[in-house]
Amino acid sequence: MSTPTIRDVAARAGVSVATVSRVLSEDPRTSASSREKVFAAAAEMGFRPNAQARSLRRTRTDTIGVLLSDVRNPFFAEIAHTVAQTALASDIATLLCNADESTEQQDHALDLLVSQRVDGIIVTPQGDGSGSLRDVLKLGLPVVFVDRVIDGVDVPSVTSDNRSGVTAAVEHLAALGHRRIGFVAGPQETSTGRERLVAYREAIAAAGLDTDPALVYQGDFRVASGVAGARALLDLDDAPTALVAADSLMTFGVLQECQDRGVRIGDEVSVIGYDDIDSFRLVNPPVTVIAHDPARMGALAVAMIRDLLAGEPVTSAVLASNLVERASTGPARRSA
Amino acid sequence: MSTPTIRDVAARAGVSVATVSRVLSEDPRTSASSREKVFAAAAEMGFRPNAQARSLRRTRTDTIGVLLSDVRNPFFAEIAHTVAQTALASDIATLLCNADESTEQQDHALDLLVSQRVDGIIVTPQGDGSGSLRDVLKLGLPVVFVDRVIDGVDVPSVTSDNRSGVTAAVEHLAALGHRRIGFVAGPQETSTGRERLVAYREAIAAAGLDTDPALVYQGDFRVASGVAGARALLDLDDAPTALVAADSLMTFGVLQECQDRGVRIGDEVSVIGYDDIDSFRLVNPPVTVIAHDPARMGALAVAMIRDLLAGEPVTSAVLASNLVERASTGPARRSA
Repeated sequence: MSTPTIRDVAARAGVSVATVSRVLSEDPRTSASSREKVFAAAAEMGFRPNAQARSLRRTRTDTIGVLLSDVRNPFFAEIAHTVAQTALASDIATLLCNADESTEQQDHALDLLVSQRVDGIIVTPQGDGSGSLRDVLKLGLPVVFVDRVIDGVDVPSVTSDNRSGVTAAVEHLAALGHRRIGFVAGPQETSTGRERLVAYREAIAAAGLDTDPALVYQGDFRVASGVAGARALLDLDDAPTALVAADSLMTFGVLQECQDRGVRIGDEVSVIGYDDIDSFRLVNPPVTVIAHDPARMGALAVAMIRDLLAGEPVTSAVLASNLVERASTGPARRSA
Repeated sequence: MSTPTIRDVAARAGVSVATVSRVLSEDPRTSASSREKVFAAAAEMGFRPNAQARSLRRTRTDTIGVLLSDVRNPFFAEIAHTVAQTALASDIATLLCNADESTEQQDHALDLLVSQRVDGIIVTPQGDGSGSLRDVLKLGLPVVFVDRVIDGVDVPSVTSDNRSGVTAAVEHLAALGHRRIGFVAGPQETSTGRERLVAYREAIAAAGLDTDPALVYQGDFRVASGVAGARALLDLDDAPTALVAADSLMTFGVLQECQDRGVRIGDEVSVIGYDDIDSFRLVNPPVTVIAHDPARMGALAVAMIRDLLAGEPVTSAVLASNLVERASTGPARRSA
């Protein structure tokens, strides 16, 4: 389809071109129903207002949307908190939505945030960039990706350097004599899930460790898959002597399963978690983690949205991740 | 002020009575600016539409607001998750806001949710019921309180029986021989903060334990106040042999401080936490907690909002809380 014009939008919406123009310029002489029709048609057709966009930008709602993958994940809750507090300091209100690690729910939430007329959206995306996310981008609404990105979707982002953190984790375990390292991977539909698994594979190959594919369990960033992953890996005939989990919730699951089966962490099996959640310091033994900085991510994402709204150039940021060594990792023993 | 009429609202808003009527009946022939003026005037004056309310109810947005005290508190995150999933099963979308334990931010968020035309609001309230909360109630918007209530504000609620949980905790410690039990209290501006402190005081008096007021540390439902509370209480000349914290975040703080000063939990000092967060099972030793049911709270709150929207009678619910005994509580020793 060629680039839709204001005339195409009017035809699709069943209103006059003048009405479309008034809606797009935020003229108060428009009805709620015509606004709905026009915005729906514009979204369906991927209409991108040009001159009109400038008018749209002038009438801000001073509200941004934040779409989290999972509000129960302390890492994302920290991002949400920082975003809300940072935005509030600039008199910008924040509406949170929860995608619950579901692309369908992500679509629902994006539609909702657009209908609520937010000025911009900060999102930890999933999926392939189709669906409502494509519509949002076509509408020209400022979007910033945080933590995750989508390949081929050109959106400014704040992410962590997943490779360096996972590589440091594998090298730490290799130095402790571990040869078989189990990996509870995140969903391969997410960039973080993919990047962390690739980094694991490259790091174990580079360190000359066992590249047995049975050492990778495919999880889904939920606690239950951490439990199932630890169970599957520790049940292997040639069980790994160390486990690495690719996010905080799966780390909780791995720790639970180790505790439930009475495996001594840091002794019989070493465990490295992801994200430096408060409670990982309190677990017995305290958990070695791949740490990154959700508070800084959230603050930067708000700054990016503000720059986008101001028409300023925006550069994506990749923050460092690093290994925090604690007592959950120790010298390798024979398989657990 | 006498009950405001539609004429008063029109005068305040600077529009005609006909415009107010059209706005209140959701007539599409109204401008965004007149709607804003009318709703602002109606909110300021506490105008409660009568016949108009029925029309308003017919034009739903199928969106509810959830205003949390602190998104980083796993207890509230679980409520938020359940609310969103329960609502979604009825094709109702959810917008979350975070009050960050601040009455001022609660006001901001309530104003925002009203302006976003949500059908109803689920809130863990704080403050005295003045400010935006009063305006929301005067507008006739369905509101359900969850976890907390406000004295004298007649809103259906889903809460926990704080008294039974705290009493069970004190009786458990008394049976283990503890005479001086320290209590890290929540903010007295919240009903849960007040009820749990009252329950503690009554339970220690009933059990004949030491009622020394120095055993109560006034916290604020944040991690740092749990750290400060444990420090202040364990630094007493006659330090308590057991500590009870009145919410999950302060429990994390108490555990952190005990760990940082090398006090052996469950041996040198017994600790009882609040809320049965996953990670409290994984801490060393696993934490005895006062447990209640955030998932059931969230699901019930959505059911109540739906009943209110349907004009059905709604009865407040008080859910049980109970003690989950784990290894963080043990026989009393001389003061830690």
